[in-house]
Amino acid sequence: MTVVSKPVPGPLKLSKRVLLGPGPSDVPPRVLEAMSKPLVGHLDPEFVALMDEMQELLRYVFQTKNRLTLAISGTGSAGMETVVVNLIEPGERMLVCINGVFGARMKDVAERAGAIVTTIERPFGEVFDPAEVKAAVERVRPKVIGIIHAETSTGAWQPVEEIARIAHDAGALIALDCVTSLGGVPVETDGWEIDAIYSGTQKCLSAPPGLAPVTLGPRAVEALGKRKTKVQSWYLDLTMIQQYWGSERFYHHTAPISMNFALREALALVAIEGLEARIARHAQNGRALQEGLSALGLGLATAAGHRLPQLTCVLIPEGIDDLTVRKRLLKDWGVEIGGGLGPFKGKAWRIGLMGHSSRRENVTLVLSAIETCLRDLGYRTEPGTAVSAAAEVYGEQAAVTA
Amino acid sequence: MTVVSKPVPGPLKLSKRVLLGPGPSDVPPRVLEAMSKPLVGHLDPEFVALMDEMQELLRYVFQTKNRLTLAISGTGSAGMETVVVNLIEPGERMLVCINGVFGARMKDVAERAGAIVTTIERPFGEVFDPAEVKAAVERVRPKVIGIIHAETSTGAWQPVEEIARIAHDAGALIALDCVTSLGGVPVETDGWEIDAIYSGTQKCLSAPPGLAPVTLGPRAVEALGKRKTKVQSWYLDLTMIQQYWGSERFYHHTAPISMNFALREALALVAIEGLEARIARHAQNGRALQEGLSALGLGLATAAGHRLPQLTCVLIPEGIDDLTVRKRLLKDWGVEIGGGLGPFKGKAWRIGLMGHSSRRENVTLVLSAIETCLRDLGYRTEPGTAVSAAAEVYGEQAAVTA
Repeated sequence: MTVVSKPVPGPLKLSKRVLLGPGPSDVPPRVLEAMSKPLVGHLDPEFVALMDEMQELLRYVFQTKNRLTLAISGTGSAGMETVVVNLIEPGERMLVCINGVFGARMKDVAERAGAIVTTIERPFGEVFDPAEVKAAVERVRPKVIGIIHAETSTGAWQPVEEIARIAHDAGALIALDCVTSLGGVPVETDGWEIDAIYSGTQKCLSAPPGLAPVTLGPRAVEALGKRKTKVQSWYLDLTMIQQYWGSERFYHHTAPISMNFALREALALVAIEGLEARIARHAQNGRALQEGLSALGLGLATAAGHRLPQLTCVLIPEGIDDLTVRKRLLKDWGVEIGGGLGPFKGKAWRIGLMGHSSRRENVTLVLSAIETCLRDLGYRTEPGTAVSAAAEVYGEQAAVTA
Repeated sequence: MTVVSKPVPGPLKLSKRVLLGPGPSDVPPRVLEAMSKPLVGHLDPEFVALMDEMQELLRYVFQTKNRLTLAISGTGSAGMETVVVNLIEPGERMLVCINGVFGARMKDVAERAGAIVTTIERPFGEVFDPAEVKAAVERVRPKVIGIIHAETSTGAWQPVEEIARIAHDAGALIALDCVTSLGGVPVETDGWEIDAIYSGTQKCLSAPPGLAPVTLGPRAVEALGKRKTKVQSWYLDLTMIQQYWGSERFYHHTAPISMNFALREALALVAIEGLEARIARHAQNGRALQEGLSALGLGLATAAGHRLPQLTCVLIPEGIDDLTVRKRLLKDWGVEIGGGLGPFKGKAWRIGLMGHSSRRENVTLVLSAIETCLRDLGYRTEPGTAVSAAAEVYGEQAAVTA
C-alpha cells in the first residue's frame, strides 16, 4: 500500500556562502575532502587508530593530559548535556552563571538532570567578577559550577582561572563551555585546572557541526566513578563511551565516521598552524573588525577587555532594520552574519571570524558590505571609514613584526 | 604555558573497504560528494528549504503523512533515546520485547528515563508471537510497547502489524526500532499504525552514520502534548526540536549541516530507485547470500521466514576461529563483516547487504572469500559451492522476469 508516493528530488543545489555568523564557520578544503572519503567501519583497525590520533590532537588543542578526552557524537549542545548529566546526580546542587543564552541553556539542562540549580546573573554582554561567584559558591556549596567561557550570544569573554580556584577551594568542580572559544582564544585546561570542558566543531575548529569535543580532568573522573546512579542519558554516558575510546574498544554506538574524519583533519590543521599562531590570527582579525565597526560609530555589546576576537556582537544603529541588512548581505555578497538573541534580538548582529573564516579578506568584505548597506539605508558615514580603521590594525602589526 | 606540545599529524590515509558488516554500509558517490560541499548556515533559507525537502523524502521512506518526521542530530541510538524519553515520563510503565542486543538497550534507556520497565524475552535469533505480547500487555497495561523490527544483533525480522493492533486495543503506544529495516524491507508507518519509529542513516539508507530519522504519529504527538514534566534530555526534546523543523524555525541547536546534505542525497537516491525496487533488490541479494551460506553447510541464527535479507547472522562452523577469518577478509579482500554479539560472540558472523552494499558483486565476493578462508582452515566443501547456489537465485529471478 502506497501512502506517500515517490517524490521527484532534483540535484542538491547550494549557493556559495562566506560564513561570518556565530557558526558554522567556513570549512577548509582539506576538511571537506575528508568528509567525502569512502567509509571504513567504526571498529576497523584504521578507525581505531584514527580515534587514538584524534585524542592526541584534542589533548593538544585542549592543552591537557586528561585521559578522558574525546569527541561526543552530537553537536556542541550535546557536549553541554554530556558534561552536565555525567557530573550531576539527581538532588545535587549546581551553580550556573548566566550572562547569555548558553548559560540559560545550561540551567535548563541541569534542571532536567535533576540538579538543584542556583543561578547568578549578569546582563547580556557582561562578564562575572570572581568575587560574586565566590559569594554564591559559599552560600550554595554546589557540587558543580557551570560557566560559559565564550558567550556565543553576546561575544563576552569570561576570565575563568580565578573562578576555577574558587571552585576548588570550596570542593566544587568547574564545568566550562568552550564551544566558541576552543581554537580561537587560549583554553588552558590543565593550566587553569578546569575539571570538565565541552566544545563544538563548527566554530574556531572549522569542521562541520556534528561532534562535541569533551575533556574531563581527574576530579571530574573521580566524581564520575563515585556516582550512585546511572547517567540518565544512555547515549551520552561517559562511563560507557570511554570504554569505546579507551583500550577496551567496547562497542557503544556507531560513531559518525565521516565527521570524525573531518574533525581529525580540522585538528591536524590546528596543529600544523600551531595554537599560538592561530590565537594571534584570531586576535588580529577580531581587533581589526572591532576597530572598523567602532570607526563607523557602532556600539559593541561587550566592554573592551572582555570582547572575544572571534565573535563580535555589534549594536544595530537606530532606524536600521536588522533583517533588511542581513538579507542583503546574503543576497548581494553571499555573506552570512548572525542576528541577536534574547534582549539583542533585532538590536544587534553577531559577526564571527572563526577558524578558517578568520581572515583579513573577510574582515574587509564584511566591513565594506555593512558600510554600503548602512549608507544605502541613510546612515551617515564617509566611504571607506571602516576598512581604513581596520587596515591600521594590520599596519601596526606589520610595523611591529618588521 | 605549553602543557602538550604540537603533534605532527600526517595526511589522512584510509584503505578502501567493502562494508558488508552490520553497518555502516558503503556510501554511494553522490552522497559522499554532498558531504564535501561547502556549508551554508543552519538558518540559511537554502538550508531551511533543504529541511522541508528532507521531511518530504523521509515521509516517503517511512510511508507516513506524520507531520513530526525529522532527523535527530545523533546516530541511531540517539533516535532510540529520543523516542523513549519523549514518550515516557518517570513512573510510567513500558513493556520492552527483548530478543537481542537492541531490545536490551531499549530497556536500559527506558529505565534511565524513569520508566517502570517490564520485559518479555525470546532467545537471540527468535521473534515474538503476538499472543505472548498480548498476554504481557494485558498483565502490564503499559503506556508504551517497545519492540525491534530488525534486530541488528541477530538478523531477526519481527512482524509488527498485529502487535500494533494489540497495543492500540489496550490503549498503549507502539515504539518501533527500524534502524536496520528502513529502506531495506517494508516499513509501513501509517499502514501498520505505528506510533513512533526511529532509524539510522548508515544501514539501508547508505548515508554515513550521524543522524537518526524519527517519525511520530498522532497518538504519540498527543502523548507528547500531555506530558506533565519536561523531556529529560534537552538535546533530544522533540517539543523544542519540532519548532526548528516546523514553520517557526526556532533555533534549537546547530544542525549537522553536512550530514543533512548527505541524508538528503541518500533519501533522493531511495526515491529515484523507488521503495518497491529497493526492497526487491535487498530481498534478492539477501536470499542469494543465504542460499550460498546454506549450501556451504553453515547454519543461520534465525529461522526461515524471519530472516532479514539485509542482515544475515551465520553460525561459525566448529573449529573455525572467528577473528582469523574476519581479519583475513579485511586484509586480503578489504571486506568487512561483523562479529557476533551477546551469546553469538565468537560464534557467528553478521553479514550485511544494506543499501548501496546490497549488490550481486558483493554477494559473490563475500561468499567466495568466506569459502576460500574456510577451505584454507580445513573446512570441507567443493570449490564454488556457495557462489553456484547464489547464482541460482539470480537465474530464477531472470527466468521469472524474462
